[in-house]
Amino acid sequence: MTILSPDALEQHLRDIGAARYHNRHPFHRALHDGKLDRTQVQAWALNRYYYQASIPAKDASLLARLPTTDLRREWRRRIEDHDGTEPGTGGVERWLALTDGLGLSRDYVQSLRGTLPATGFAVEAYVHFVRERSILAAIASSLTELFSPTIISERVSGMLRHYDFISEKTLAYFTPRLTQAPRDSDFALAYVREHARTAERQAEVIGALEFKCAVLWSMLDALQHAYMEGHPPPGVFRGRETPEAFAS
Amino acid sequence: MTILSPDALEQHLRDIGAARYHNRHPFHRALHDGKLDRTQVQAWALNRYYYQASIPAKDASLLARLPTTDLRREWRRRIEDHDGTEPGTGGVERWLALTDGLGLSRDYVQSLRGTLPATGFAVEAYVHFVRERSILAAIASSLTELFSPTIISERVSGMLRHYDFISEKTLAYFTPRLTQAPRDSDFALAYVREHARTAERQAEVIGALEFKCAVLWSMLDALQHAYMEGHPPPGVFRGRETPEAFAS
Repeated sequence: MTILSPDALEQHLRDIGAARYHNRHPFHRALHDGKLDRTQVQAWALNRYYYQASIPAKDASLLARLPTTDLRREWRRRIEDHDGTEPGTGGVERWLALTDGLGLSRDYVQSLRGTLPATGFAVEAYVHFVRERSILAAIASSLTELFSPTIISERVSGMLRHYDFISEKTLAYFTPRLTQAPRDSDFALAYVREHARTAERQAEVIGALEFKCAVLWSMLDALQHAYMEGHPPPGVFRGRETPEAFAS
Repeated sequence: MTILSPDALEQHLRDIGAARYHNRHPFHRALHDGKLDRTQVQAWALNRYYYQASIPAKDASLLARLPTTDLRREWRRRIEDHDGTEPGTGGVERWLALTDGLGLSRDYVQSLRGTLPATGFAVEAYVHFVRERSILAAIASSLTELFSPTIISERVSGMLRHYDFISEKTLAYFTPRLTQAPRDSDFALAYVREHARTAERQAEVIGALEFKCAVLWSMLDALQHAYMEGHPPPGVFRGRETPEAFAS
């Protein structure tokens, strides 16, 4: 095992993003190229809501383990970004503006009923990873934000151009992310460059970013399989809202 | 919410199996109909090993929470079935005889390198479910064994008939399961019939079986997407063993 310089480590992480970030996924490309129908876009937004809604819990479990005021203040801001400062604000709420705009009811979306099981397995794997691994690995797993401004720009311009059921208002989620994501990833990258100084710690960081890329990729794999290739598993959203599960 | 009689609850559980158990999945049908090539069968055995190898840990986390000697003795036998009584015995070892027979190296298989990320997310979701949910739900999640003798018979006869790289010896895993699975599921079914006497508890049982069916189904979805439809995600087995991950 070789110890990388901070610059070489950063380059390695950027190479992982170039190879594995989900902007390369066929479902993302179809989404921003206008190749999906309304049901497929609904399915994407519905499943992605599970991820959005879990991010504050993920961040809170890391917040609970951070050792200093400075680190906690930094991480607390991320929860504030997602949960807002008062009712009706924050990223999770703005994601609901998107599912509203796509004609899905809030009760249905928030129940997570109708999401693909594979979505939940991937999201919960991420939540557990951040809860259970080292603080360094947990912070490194957020580094996909390094690559998100590109995907957001592609997504917003492509979706506005191609889908008449999408408006700037329904895409309100993405605008603040264009400034929040670089700020967050600058912090995480500096932390990782400073704290991953042995080969073992660097392997942890690299593994964490690969893991996170796999979480996002597998969510799009599941959407592609179910909604582009026509193999929805039992019980999921099929263009109409599925009924209440038995007795729950 | 209606309270079901024990018989009606059992029927409901059997209906879930009839609709959602993975013997209905296209990948399973292709496997036992001889429609897969050797790489696809290898990928199945390799990914399924992740599941097999995690079952004793799953059972041990339940064992640790069971309140009586009788229950623990019953559950301990399952770990013994999988881990054996001495080196070279038990279900996990017999699964390795299958991957041996398919030409995969043990180091590679046991490293879990090359498995689909979606496999790990689904298996870990099952392990976490059993660790975190009620004892009733944990026991109910094992009820897929009710339906496994059918799938095992189909699998063994179909695979022996269609694949010249499969022999009775490589399929040794499955023979003991034909007697173990009914014994295990008889116990779990009796437990559930006795202990799920309110509508809420019955909903828990039903939810647990649906969850477990979704775990198994999503594992085959991921295999079908990657290896039948030609969308393997970055870094996984592609018919040859993938190299060591960076510095680990």
